[in-house]
Amino acid sequence: MSFNDYLQQCQQQVQRALPTMLGSAGSEFSDADAGQALTRLFEASHYSLMNGGKRVRATLVYATAHALDADIDDNALDSCACAIEMIHAYSLVHDDLPAMDDDALRRGKPTCHIAYDEATAILVGDGLQSRAFELLTELSLPAENCLAMLRLLAAASGPRGMVGGQAIDLANVNRQLDLATLQTMHQLKTGALIRAAIGLAALASNASAQQRQQLDNYGQAIGLAFQVQDDILDIEGDTAILGKTQGADQSLNKPTFPALLGLDGAKALAQQLHEQALTALQDFGPGADALRQLSNYIIERRH
Amino acid sequence: MSFNDYLQQCQQQVQRALPTMLGSAGSEFSDADAGQALTRLFEASHYSLMNGGKRVRATLVYATAHALDADIDDNALDSCACAIEMIHAYSLVHDDLPAMDDDALRRGKPTCHIAYDEATAILVGDGLQSRAFELLTELSLPAENCLAMLRLLAAASGPRGMVGGQAIDLANVNRQLDLATLQTMHQLKTGALIRAAIGLAALASNASAQQRQQLDNYGQAIGLAFQVQDDILDIEGDTAILGKTQGADQSLNKPTFPALLGLDGAKALAQQLHEQALTALQDFGPGADALRQLSNYIIERRH
Repeated sequence: MSFNDYLQQCQQQVQRALPTMLGSAGSEFSDADAGQALTRLFEASHYSLMNGGKRVRATLVYATAHALDADIDDNALDSCACAIEMIHAYSLVHDDLPAMDDDALRRGKPTCHIAYDEATAILVGDGLQSRAFELLTELSLPAENCLAMLRLLAAASGPRGMVGGQAIDLANVNRQLDLATLQTMHQLKTGALIRAAIGLAALASNASAQQRQQLDNYGQAIGLAFQVQDDILDIEGDTAILGKTQGADQSLNKPTFPALLGLDGAKALAQQLHEQALTALQDFGPGADALRQLSNYIIERRH
Repeated sequence: MSFNDYLQQCQQQVQRALPTMLGSAGSEFSDADAGQALTRLFEASHYSLMNGGKRVRATLVYATAHALDADIDDNALDSCACAIEMIHAYSLVHDDLPAMDDDALRRGKPTCHIAYDEATAILVGDGLQSRAFELLTELSLPAENCLAMLRLLAAASGPRGMVGGQAIDLANVNRQLDLATLQTMHQLKTGALIRAAIGLAALASNASAQQRQQLDNYGQAIGLAFQVQDDILDIEGDTAILGKTQGADQSLNKPTFPALLGLDGAKALAQQLHEQALTALQDFGPGADALRQLSNYIIERRH
């Protein structure tokens, strides 16, 4: 199977699973007013989840289990993939709010607070976060594994992970940052969740401590590469392909890798991180080829 | 010990535990810009957590363990109490945002988005939610118990719990609601978390299924009573005591129990719910007296 086919298969698998994992308002809230409000909340959550994302994080879950040749219940793996995508989706919904990045467009579609309203967007994000954790409590895996996975996801999402990265990002709009700070910001803002996707699958697959460390090294490299490439695309990309306003980060005066390293320097860094990712996987056999190609995809993608 | 002393002791216990459970930005983020932003995020989270609340939910955790004569590690109980208070605090921070209830004052102090800024308030809420779940992954209890507790808290917090109640509330500002819908809204918005506080302590204490059901019946009754009394105080209370603008809910044209039942009808309902709560505890001995007095406190409190 070509990597593109593999990617598409992973995307389809998580897209199929997400609506079921989200659930619905439920018929037990039979009175019209309460039922309507809950139905709208679930519709807005569905809208925000099913927004045509690349599903890189979900693909990392499947590809990591694949690399470990893990014998895991499909449903458990889908739950991990959906939990990660829900945390990612909630962060985008909140990130797009007027008080944050104030984005009206996400992947060519109106953002949640535009399609619905700000209050709904806040609640959609809050609810997706709760539901992500709930999913990991329902896995058909040993309780010890589930608990370690929940601990990993909570730490990666929280103020010392993704949320902390957002705070660093927002505090530094219109400011010059040095490379170390820019890297810290991205390690938390994007990297933590990418590493968590890999970590969840590794814990679900009963990977050894050494395997988990190697996979985490891979995750650190591709997480940063992902952001470097995002910054490159923000300069080189096309709005129609990106689905967001090109140069948006530049116009917000956000610090970027090309701004610090130049465009060529940023491209060289992306390539170097890709090589680090491959080195981290050197003890893995051909089962890890999807992870290797995913690293390549991250720095080659045009959107 | 008088109930007031007991309440104060529980309040002090959770107040002592909260800063430690929240943690700090950490010295590993040594570069100045990243460290500053994270320090501010943790300060704002601390500010929102330590806001002089009554700690009814934390007290329910301690009092439920007391009623079950449970032999639990103090630290595990503190973690449950802190997790519940963090979920509660996050919901208040988001509820106060301009797009939601737009409140500048909470318990006599500027709300988080006023004292800091809106983006910080959104992130504070998001981070407190993650941290609450993380706390329950770190308990010195069997993994099976922790997992059941996490499942309970996630369901109570999510779109079929607290967040769903918020959505029903916001959809019905300026609208007439019947009593059934008003009750559904409050069962989700406030009741779900109050029941979760009791449920967490019951699961941590290895309560029997029957005990858990009886305690949950108690929780349902006091959860609703809490809201009925809130509505009564919104009419009768004094701004200086309440710490929020008196009549705020009325001026927002929010549906309330006194509006539907009259002030006397609302008071009668609160009394009836208190009696239901006592009935639910009839199989429990004097160890449950704190729970009984807490029910009384809920409908007698003046703020």
